[in-house]
Amino acid sequence: MAAETHLIIMAGGIGSRFWPLSTPEYPKQFIDVTGRGRSLLQMTCDRFAALCPIERTWVVTNAAYVPIVRQQLPQIPDENILAEPAARNTAPCIAYAGWKIRQKHPEANIIVAPSDAYVRDDAEFRRIIGEALSYTCDRNAIVTIGITPTRPETGYGYIQMETAGAEGEIRKVASFREKPDKETARAYLEAGCYLWNAGIFVWNIKTLEESIRSYVPDIAEGLDAIAQSFYTKKEGPALAEAFPKLRKISIDYAVMEHHPGIHTIPADFGWSDLGNWASLHSLLESDAEGNAAVGPVRFVECSGCIAHVQGTEKVVLQGLQDCIISCSGGRMLICRKSEEQRIRDWN
Amino acid sequence: MAAETHLIIMAGGIGSRFWPLSTPEYPKQFIDVTGRGRSLLQMTCDRFAALCPIERTWVVTNAAYVPIVRQQLPQIPDENILAEPAARNTAPCIAYAGWKIRQKHPEANIIVAPSDAYVRDDAEFRRIIGEALSYTCDRNAIVTIGITPTRPETGYGYIQMETAGAEGEIRKVASFREKPDKETARAYLEAGCYLWNAGIFVWNIKTLEESIRSYVPDIAEGLDAIAQSFYTKKEGPALAEAFPKLRKISIDYAVMEHHPGIHTIPADFGWSDLGNWASLHSLLESDAEGNAAVGPVRFVECSGCIAHVQGTEKVVLQGLQDCIISCSGGRMLICRKSEEQRIRDWN
Repeated sequence: MAAETHLIIMAGGIGSRFWPLSTPEYPKQFIDVTGRGRSLLQMTCDRFAALCPIERTWVVTNAAYVPIVRQQLPQIPDENILAEPAARNTAPCIAYAGWKIRQKHPEANIIVAPSDAYVRDDAEFRRIIGEALSYTCDRNAIVTIGITPTRPETGYGYIQMETAGAEGEIRKVASFREKPDKETARAYLEAGCYLWNAGIFVWNIKTLEESIRSYVPDIAEGLDAIAQSFYTKKEGPALAEAFPKLRKISIDYAVMEHHPGIHTIPADFGWSDLGNWASLHSLLESDAEGNAAVGPVRFVECSGCIAHVQGTEKVVLQGLQDCIISCSGGRMLICRKSEEQRIRDWN
Repeated sequence: MAAETHLIIMAGGIGSRFWPLSTPEYPKQFIDVTGRGRSLLQMTCDRFAALCPIERTWVVTNAAYVPIVRQQLPQIPDENILAEPAARNTAPCIAYAGWKIRQKHPEANIIVAPSDAYVRDDAEFRRIIGEALSYTCDRNAIVTIGITPTRPETGYGYIQMETAGAEGEIRKVASFREKPDKETARAYLEAGCYLWNAGIFVWNIKTLEESIRSYVPDIAEGLDAIAQSFYTKKEGPALAEAFPKLRKISIDYAVMEHHPGIHTIPADFGWSDLGNWASLHSLLESDAEGNAAVGPVRFVECSGCIAHVQGTEKVVLQGLQDCIISCSGGRMLICRKSEEQRIRDWN
């Protein structure tokens, strides 16, 4: 099989944990969270550019966000921006993109990735993804990227590797584990065979199609019923009718936990899901008192603070300890870092 | 003398203690500091409206602020907005306005007032000013308004009344006192014959002219030299040449401390100079935890905070104690209330 690499970027999240930086109208993946002048979606595209050309990059997002994607990625073909009429979790999202790709690109070897993660070492990232692509191009296998854990994180799902039967860097997956409690997370870290689930995985189009047909046949049927409309003017109306009826289920529950050929590559390229303020804080450069900022912030007698101030000219913060400070588009939040899980209740 | 009431509002301050709410480009007097939908200047005009018609109201301000005054007080005649080419403190400011008024209104009885103070009881305020106007209309006297102190305030100058020789509510002034230290302020409060100097005073045009001629003759001469240009096209250029050369001196040092006919009326109309964040906090309504806000602020586990957030849609503050929180025009400040005297150093 002469593989042709494709990339499906999932960009439909609403990023409610980063309010007010992220809002349902303009969520996290479209924001310059790290202060480098590029949104997380743009950085994701940049990171994959050497692996997959833009004309084979597909962005699946909510219909409401299509104009933002078009504006942020002007080089992407319009037909590669797939508009979900409703949020149905990741299985329908990936299946829809897969069904579209299959019609025109029966040789596709596909990377699926979220749009809003951070990677420090792009070169190592590309090397790892390249290994995964080589493995899946001619096998009925799924290779999911596993991040070597550096702390007993309770905010991520884990991948348990099998201890025997490695093929080069590729390992078989023994099981997927939900977000653990602190004690379990510590045990995982010590055991050495658990990896963070980065939600990035690679499979070829045949594996994708067969997996959907086998494990979530209702989703396959729903898409088969409208597949004739794809790439025509009827696609939008057909999708609007059919998509909201597809089962709301994640790709992990739908496929990963059932497929016999799940593999992983332990990777170490400085990854973060940027899932909360603490994770942003940990990857930004901090001053001697542990303060980090994106934006024109002056810290006076502050310590342990993380500030992200969009559209500001000058910000002075004095006498704050361990606080999150964020403003964006007329909204402002200041709270203790220890209380960040309550942000969703306040916005 | 058939008195005709005039009002001189001094609106040239730059309000550096209220940064970022107040900036040199748009200082405090032009801002809706109290959240009632009117700027301090507008509220000052409103307060005097029943005492003095708008066509006899004069606003002296920095040339740079003339467009703001015009926009905020559209009903005021253009020629009543006096543009200072430079800031020379209050004596040149008042003398210039007096010299202009004298040419057209030789019967004027004049109130001089700052543009940025707060008054709770407007009716009592008008009654007191009315008393002062009655006293000065036919006397060579200056009546300055003295506020009955309610706390040992160290941020205000004080007026010492003479204990004997009252004429109705009018009392002779024994002396003016600079801002005291805490101990002295306590002694003033106990003594009962000290009042806060509100910087509001009343005199007739003859007293004004003679005082300037007697005590700061150089200022009188400077204005005499350009008086022929007043109300003509030559006024602007003449003033631009002459005004910056006038002595930089306050009306207190120039006149008040020398004039033999200084009187005061002890008044109690809920006055504040709104000179700092603490004074704003004290006049706003606070919640049960002592938090007060102007703007759409939600306090969560905060206490003793004062927030003023301009142009915001939603602000959530959690876990802050005794802080000032302000944002305006892309600038933001958060600091401990105890440190507010340092705000000038940060902006």
